[in-house]
Amino acid sequence: MKELNNLLKEIKDYKSKMFGRDFLLTWDKSIDELKQILAIADLLKLMRQENISARCFDSGIAVSLFRDNSTRTRFSFASACNLLGLAVQDLDEGKSQIAHGETVRETANMISFLSEVIGIRDDMFLGAGHTYMVEVGEALEDGFKQKVLPQRPAIVNLQCDVDHPTQAMADLGWLKEYFGGLDKLQGKKIAMTWAYSPSYGKPLSVPQGIIGLMTRFGMEVSLAHPEGYNLIPDVMDVAKKNAKESGGKFAVCNTMEEAFKGADIVYPKSWAPYSVMQKRTTLLQNKDHDGLKVLEKECLANNAKFKNWECTEEMMKLTKKGKALYMHCLPADITDVSCKAGEVAASVFDRYRIETYKEAGYKPYMIAAMILTSRFKDIHGLLEKLIKQGKERVA
Amino acid sequence: MKELNNLLKEIKDYKSKMFGRDFLLTWDKSIDELKQILAIADLLKLMRQENISARCFDSGIAVSLFRDNSTRTRFSFASACNLLGLAVQDLDEGKSQIAHGETVRETANMISFLSEVIGIRDDMFLGAGHTYMVEVGEALEDGFKQKVLPQRPAIVNLQCDVDHPTQAMADLGWLKEYFGGLDKLQGKKIAMTWAYSPSYGKPLSVPQGIIGLMTRFGMEVSLAHPEGYNLIPDVMDVAKKNAKESGGKFAVCNTMEEAFKGADIVYPKSWAPYSVMQKRTTLLQNKDHDGLKVLEKECLANNAKFKNWECTEEMMKLTKKGKALYMHCLPADITDVSCKAGEVAASVFDRYRIETYKEAGYKPYMIAAMILTSRFKDIHGLLEKLIKQGKERVA
Amino acid sequence: MKELNNLLKEIKDYKSKMFGRDFLLTWDKSIDELKQILAIADLLKLMRQENISARCFDSGIAVSLFRDNSTRTRFSFASACNLLGLAVQDLDEGKSQIAHGETVRETANMISFLSEVIGIRDDMFLGAGHTYMVEVGEALEDGFKQKVLPQRPAIVNLQCDVDHPTQAMADLGWLKEYFGGLDKLQGKKIAMTWAYSPSYGKPLSVPQGIIGLMTRFGMEVSLAHPEGYNLIPDVMDVAKKNAKESGGKFAVCNTMEEAFKGADIVYPKSWAPYSVMQKRTTLLQNKDHDGLKVLEKECLANNAKFKNWECTEEMMKLTKKGKALYMHCLPADITDVSCKAGEVAASVFDRYRIETYKEAGYKPYMIAAMILTSRFKDIHGLLEKLIKQGKERVA
Repeated sequence: MKELNNLLKEIKDYKSKMFGRDFLLTWDKSIDELKQILAIADLLKLMRQENISARCFDSGIAVSLFRDNSTRTRFSFASACNLLGLAVQDLDEGKSQIAHGETVRETANMISFLSEVIGIRDDMFLGAGHTYMVEVGEALEDGFKQKVLPQRPAIVNLQCDVDHPTQAMADLGWLKEYFGGLDKLQGKKIAMTWAYSPSYGKPLSVPQGIIGLMTRFGMEVSLAHPEGYNLIPDVMDVAKKNAKESGGKFAVCNTMEEAFKGADIVYPKSWAPYSVMQKRTTLLQNKDHDGLKVLEKECLANNAKFKNWECTEEMMKLTKKGKALYMHCLPADITDVSCKAGEVAASVFDRYRIETYKEAGYKPYMIAAMILTSRFKDIHGLLEKLIKQGKERVA
Repeated sequence: MKELNNLLKEIKDYKSKMFGRDFLLTWDKSIDELKQILAIADLLKLMRQENISARCFDSGIAVSLFRDNSTRTRFSFASACNLLGLAVQDLDEGKSQIAHGETVRETANMISFLSEVIGIRDDMFLGAGHTYMVEVGEALEDGFKQKVLPQRPAIVNLQCDVDHPTQAMADLGWLKEYFGGLDKLQGKKIAMTWAYSPSYGKPLSVPQGIIGLMTRFGMEVSLAHPEGYNLIPDVMDVAKKNAKESGGKFAVCNTMEEAFKGADIVYPKSWAPYSVMQKRTTLLQNKDHDGLKVLEKECLANNAKFKNWECTEEMMKLTKKGKALYMHCLPADITDVSCKAGEVAASVFDRYRIETYKEAGYKPYMIAAMILTSRFKDIHGLLEKLIKQGKERVA
Repeated sequence: MKELNNLLKEIKDYKSKMFGRDFLLTWDKSIDELKQILAIADLLKLMRQENISARCFDSGIAVSLFRDNSTRTRFSFASACNLLGLAVQDLDEGKSQIAHGETVRETANMISFLSEVIGIRDDMFLGAGHTYMVEVGEALEDGFKQKVLPQRPAIVNLQCDVDHPTQAMADLGWLKEYFGGLDKLQGKKIAMTWAYSPSYGKPLSVPQGIIGLMTRFGMEVSLAHPEGYNLIPDVMDVAKKNAKESGGKFAVCNTMEEAFKGADIVYPKSWAPYSVMQKRTTLLQNKDHDGLKVLEKECLANNAKFKNWECTEEMMKLTKKGKALYMHCLPADITDVSCKAGEVAASVFDRYRIETYKEAGYKPYMIAAMILTSRFKDIHGLLEKLIKQGKERVA
């Protein structure tokens, strides 16, 4: 109970203007706002442990729109919405369809008459996912102002071409727990590195999310990737600016070894080069299946040059006392387990398996916190009320 | 609160026998019953605005069975059910499957042990959709009498080959709001006209729903379509009879211009000729894909003769003071927006865009009202109880 | 109310250790535990009749994982979960995919952060379904112990290669009602017989479930099938052992006539021979489509030799006073209705149609009882609380 009250107080003290706004990019939010999200997530987690219901919607629809396959994020979103009392309704627009203009405006309103939140995953097309979410947001804003909609549903970015905020915030929540507080992250070195995988076309949003978020909390973020595997330049600029402001560091290096050296945390993960994603977007839009096959072949051949980018036991020895925390958004490509050669050695992964599960376990709570802050003006009042009321989650 | 009480009183005063019966066709219901549905929909809408929960089911399943694609109606049904506390479970029978006899009887019971409502969309096969719904209803009736089912689930027609009552009632609810009352509709002219679209096979249920419903409220319904684009003769007879009884008018004319002349409301929309739908039904049943392609080609070629059936600014000038209300069930085929030549000019649509959204916004409430009247004997008592109880929808 | 209290007392008196354990096979449970499930199912059914809410979860996810098509079981599971307050979230892994090791462990945890129950249907692969469920259970157990999961979700077997406990328990519940008590089943003869069907590859889990369960209640179970249509040997052993312990009988005979002779209950149903299912499993795993076609052809040809294995009026005359209760898990292959020659004559099926529906009607309540006993330590206390509280299910 004391812990609940401490969290409540913390939540109250943060300055936050998230009401009525979407959660699309972590760098659109202030440090106070991000801290508030973390504190609310911790509170919701604790409430569940204490069997206190967090149900604040007696009814209401949560729309899920996935333009890419997903099991984990789908379940996280469903769990978060259910925790708050919302029922998920899937919107199936087809994986590869990009709607614009009138269609977006109309659909956004048609699905929102009694909806409280729209979760969107749209990470296939570079330059399109974030843009689409902004467009949906504008349509909802207009629908609400014009009294088409009795409420303004919140949009939660469940992964776009630019950021993956629910993942990055879950990662941050886990680091906060692991190291015992956000302040403990100041000066910690995190190695966000590319790693080899026998697949191609993995989105850039995870590494971009990490460099865009961790640089805000005074961490020393070391990004490493083979030549050509660049991230979106704009996000690189965001990371540089963040590091400067927070008293942290943002450095790019060319080897996994350099990034791992002395690191407190390592996050080795495959992604596709920016330029490949650009080509791929054009090919996808043109439905050029032959072109896609050629690109895949080229890209896999290029990947194969970097099989040594693997998080092995030897690599881990380079980290601080050889004991850096291994992180991954899952599923990882584990050498000799899920593939012949992958991102991480089986023994390393196995040692940190439970940790990666706990990392993932934060996601539902982060999503729930994002929904609440967008939909409730007096978020502290709401949470206080729910706790005071103390309705049992399970009888 | 006063408005809530006025609506409650209105609901009480209507004579209604909808309890235990399905909502399949608007012309199966009395004027009082339709007015009660409208009033309940308005009440539910108002309750939501006032943050009063309309949840009357603590648990219960709502089955959705869509034999045709749908985003709007799917969301409307899900929203309505959720508002009342029901959880939607989809029944996937495959799009083109028509079940009969033992299969229908058995499935109807198997999905209904704990179900409160079954929403069905079955508009592909002329002569089949409505028949199927009646058959399901009989199976449920029997299952309930035989004590297989602890309750008799309500069927809501979410579009069949004959009528589209949730759409037509939403349209009527919107007209009631727009013109300030049902009584204001007496003598108003509505032009239900065919319009060109670069697609084929659109169901007849929307125009049929409109002529079958609007003729009951003293409106002057003017139906216009190119030669051959007839509606089902039985429904035409219904409209004629209705107009006679209500003191309205029902006229058929051969040009959009004539229908639009002096109209208070215009509803220009594409549909397939009755005879084409008959042929198409046979081809679909025989899975004659080549035959379907030939038919589509013929039909599109025929459609193309009538590209001048477009709701342009010039057409709109013919309406009363040039300011008729434009209506559409959405999505509309908008010239130069969603297609090269379509049902409506972009400038006309854009002027009425928000109005069409508001029109659509009534659908969830109409569906909810249909469910309530079928499932609750003392509908006034229920609603009074919910309002008195005053549970917050959002904490 | 008196009946509710009697059931409550009965539930209290049974010795049960089902808390925290999965429901995978009926023969893993004690007689007391099975009786408790039956009593809870009856209580939940009665509570619904009396409009008393059984909702004990304010929020919570129920995962449904179907590796085979299903309408009935899907709806039963959804209905059961909804009755208790859980929201169903489907996990689509693809029909034919068998995951093992790391993937199972990881997925089991990723979908369970806020989940209370996982319902699994996995009956396609002999030797795989039950094994998979055990593996998922171990992963959940580990995740709970390692504090990845705040609760240990219950697994309910919705049909595996070995048993179909929700069906068999529903069948038992129905027999209890039909004959007026479990004690009345002692000495009753049930004929579990193969029957002809123009399909192949039907799972063995229903007949296995029946011989594994009914032998525990002192029934005389007579299993009959054509040569070669054996069940899994281990389950045959279970049935023999059960019969011995319960004072019942378990006999295998070679003709439908012999099994039907003097039977109180008949359960004629098609299944594939054990050896065919073994071959089929290998072919499915190797994705050998040609091999599957050959096997299907062979098997159908072999089936066709046994068209006389049909539950006709003549066969029924052999049963006790010609009035044995006909049972089926549905859908049945009805001669001249769903096929030219099938498992049962139309006139026989029609006479017992309503009875088979009532049989099926127990399934949602059995599933709910399985969930409750696994998730609540003090099951009697919970049910007493819900009844005392007396919240209306429908307002």
